[in-house]
Amino acid sequence: MPDLPDQREERERGGLEQQSEQQRVPPPEAVDDRPGSEARGECGHGADRERQTGCGEGDPPHVVQVDDDEREDDPVAERVDDPAGLDEPDLARQHRVETADVIRRRSHGAANYATRVELEARVATYELAETFVISRDSSDESESVVAELTHEGQTGYGEGTPIERYYEDGASAVEFLHECRGALGGDPFALDDILGALPATPHTQAARAALDHALHDLCGKLTGLPVWRLLGLHRTGPPTCWTVWLGDPDDMARRAEAAAPRFQRLKLKLGGRDGLDLERVRAVRAVTELPLQVDVNEYWSVDEALEALPELAGLGVEYCEQPLPEGDAGGARVKAASPIPIYVDEDCHTLADVAASAERAHGINIKLSKSGGIREAVRMAHAARALGLGVMLGCMTESGLGISAGAQIASLCDFVDLDGNLLLLEDPWPGVEFRDGVQLAPNKPGLGVEPVVSLAAERSDGRS
Amino acid sequence: MPDLPDQREERERGGLEQQSEQQRVPPPEAVDDRPGSEARGECGHGADRERQTGCGEGDPPHVVQVDDDEREDDPVAERVDDPAGLDEPDLARQHRVETADVIRRRSHGAANYATRVELEARVATYELAETFVISRDSSDESESVVAELTHEGQTGYGEGTPIERYYEDGASAVEFLHECRGALGGDPFALDDILGALPATPHTQAARAALDHALHDLCGKLTGLPVWRLLGLHRTGPPTCWTVWLGDPDDMARRAEAAAPRFQRLKLKLGGRDGLDLERVRAVRAVTELPLQVDVNEYWSVDEALEALPELAGLGVEYCEQPLPEGDAGGARVKAASPIPIYVDEDCHTLADVAASAERAHGINIKLSKSGGIREAVRMAHAARALGLGVMLGCMTESGLGISAGAQIASLCDFVDLDGNLLLLEDPWPGVEFRDGVQLAPNKPGLGVEPVVSLAAERSDGRS
Repeated sequence: MPDLPDQREERERGGLEQQSEQQRVPPPEAVDDRPGSEARGECGHGADRERQTGCGEGDPPHVVQVDDDEREDDPVAERVDDPAGLDEPDLARQHRVETADVIRRRSHGAANYATRVELEARVATYELAETFVISRDSSDESESVVAELTHEGQTGYGEGTPIERYYEDGASAVEFLHECRGALGGDPFALDDILGALPATPHTQAARAALDHALHDLCGKLTGLPVWRLLGLHRTGPPTCWTVWLGDPDDMARRAEAAAPRFQRLKLKLGGRDGLDLERVRAVRAVTELPLQVDVNEYWSVDEALEALPELAGLGVEYCEQPLPEGDAGGARVKAASPIPIYVDEDCHTLADVAASAERAHGINIKLSKSGGIREAVRMAHAARALGLGVMLGCMTESGLGISAGAQIASLCDFVDLDGNLLLLEDPWPGVEFRDGVQLAPNKPGLGVEPVVSLAAERSDGRS
Repeated sequence: MPDLPDQREERERGGLEQQSEQQRVPPPEAVDDRPGSEARGECGHGADRERQTGCGEGDPPHVVQVDDDEREDDPVAERVDDPAGLDEPDLARQHRVETADVIRRRSHGAANYATRVELEARVATYELAETFVISRDSSDESESVVAELTHEGQTGYGEGTPIERYYEDGASAVEFLHECRGALGGDPFALDDILGALPATPHTQAARAALDHALHDLCGKLTGLPVWRLLGLHRTGPPTCWTVWLGDPDDMARRAEAAAPRFQRLKLKLGGRDGLDLERVRAVRAVTELPLQVDVNEYWSVDEALEALPELAGLGVEYCEQPLPEGDAGGARVKAASPIPIYVDEDCHTLADVAASAERAHGINIKLSKSGGIREAVRMAHAARALGLGVMLGCMTESGLGISAGAQIASLCDFVDLDGNLLLLEDPWPGVEFRDGVQLAPNKPGLGVEPVVSLAAERSDGRS
């Protein structure tokens, strides 16, 4: 309870002598007075609490536990069974019963706690449209992990992309997801309960993302709502950039020119370590008037960054992503000197990294396979706004299943890089519509994408 | 698109010569190529965008507008009408149709955009259980604003408490809510759309809270989910404190002793300006072993705070709320010196205040009538975590309708002060259960509280 609105002024006028108020406490019968009830469950100071991996919110130890039998109660039944107060007018009772009846017919989102949420996980391998010789081992295919949750006749799907440099691969992600089964209760809406109960195993962010996305997909399907509506967000976000991979300046210009008619902005990969990075930008600038962005992927030194950034500003580049290696001590200096916004990617994975990112950048690049899914990504976006940071949404080489998860929350962002599924030979999860340069979230329940070939059929063919 | 996982390493090994990759762009027919489509809707840098009052997320100007007719599409119908691909196995088609059928039966949360959300607003005046002589004018009653939204046969209710010191009262809140009617479309789930379209009128946070809460109540009822489940949160939060109003030390000790058996922690109002504040804490400490918290409501100077805080630590006080006047230049100094956490209330209203609060405090006190409702409060909690801040949830003198809104998100907080409805002679919105010191969110759809007397009956009596 705060002061009454004018308590401060009154105290200054009259002092304490006037304040003989009595205080009312609830009647004893409203309270559980059993011995020891006060002593249990002290709640520590937030800043000192231990954090779960990839989870911005810890769970304060609370005193009151909801009994299992109470959880299983049908909320509608509780409501109808409430006896009307003796002093209550008949009209009020009638009003309440009518309301309950309407709700009973609508309560399809109510939990059936007797039925556990079931989880399956598998590795999905996608063929890329073009062979990338950047990497000998991963040049013509990409690997994701797909989580599949079933509950009450609905199936929710989610994709995450293991990132090798963070010690993840498809097999380890599937293994981790199998270990997560014990954390799934009977209520897929209990996101904090479920995600907070996952094993603390590190290097599992892609698997966590797959599970988080599958939960969102399932909750959307159970309520009949697209995830963007379930979260209260706009359907549309900013247009995605198209990424122009690193190459010779002429080659990059040629590829930029080919892509330009179909996109609203282009992102150029820099960091060639050959003194030609600015030539690359000039070459592309000469063939298109589209807004340009650059991503250096940690390849510049502080001196290189300080020299290049003013030139990029002169070429109209919107922002520069991750110019320095992760954690480079020169980050704050480069931020202070840069005439264009600096965004960090490798420096910012989860909510715990956002505050430090503000010291070295003007914005953060959120990727769901780094954050561990939609829920943490939304937290990061809000925290970034509180710090005056811009927000960008990135992706991996992934199918429409993962891209749709990004599209659901794209409206929280200033810049979007969601071209991952456009790189695949065939997107096995169509549903995200590429319209006027925007990856548009489907207007269908959950993530709104469906497999081209049913997973059941795929399995019976022995293809997974 | 990011680098492939090992692009960096590969570049360091092989250089650019290997990178002759081609890039695939989507086929032209997938894209709207009409002239000028690239030039529209540039998206500014996030940090520079203008903020809506009480709204942490601005709306970037996006290119793609969702047509009204598309919004009105039934998502299930879209899904069923999708022609099965010619190459698709029959099994897959069968799988999809069956899924669609299940979803069709569940899609009660789907929007009926043809029906607008209707809004009514009124002032509610509550009689307090005891007369508080602190304030001559507001001593025996409290004023709230109640918003009432109807849509598809459901009614959502929300309460906010106008705060006089922020130039709000019930009448101005009702007037503002009437002006908000134009922002309500046909989809109560479109929280960002609706809240982002409200008039920018200042001094309207309580009215915004009432509307935000009514939207959450309505969305919960439309899906059959309690708001805490709709938000993926735990049902239970920390126990509420009971506020011991300012008085003589003996009087406060007597009232603390009377309340102690029913609560898990006590919050003492300090700031008597009579040199007796520490005596107050000692007197209460002598009669109870409950955790104690203190709220100075801006009454101390920096020197007084620096002298008192170590004494409070010695008395086992958990934290000190708002020791200094809002914006006091000594805030950082007091924070650095304090042996117990400092929480700010008057210093922190919305997301925009959270980062600055970190300079002067270890935690923030979120109140829904300051933040403008649940949605901004959740943003603030996430931002606070990113900054390592503790989170406290406060309240005003308000009914169970407002207290339930707080209880829905209490699990995000370390400390909870939700005793507002316990001060009323009669709570006109029962449903929040006070159990073992915790204000427990109802396990019923929406906010889960219902009026004791139906509002329709009340109106016909001419009582509002």
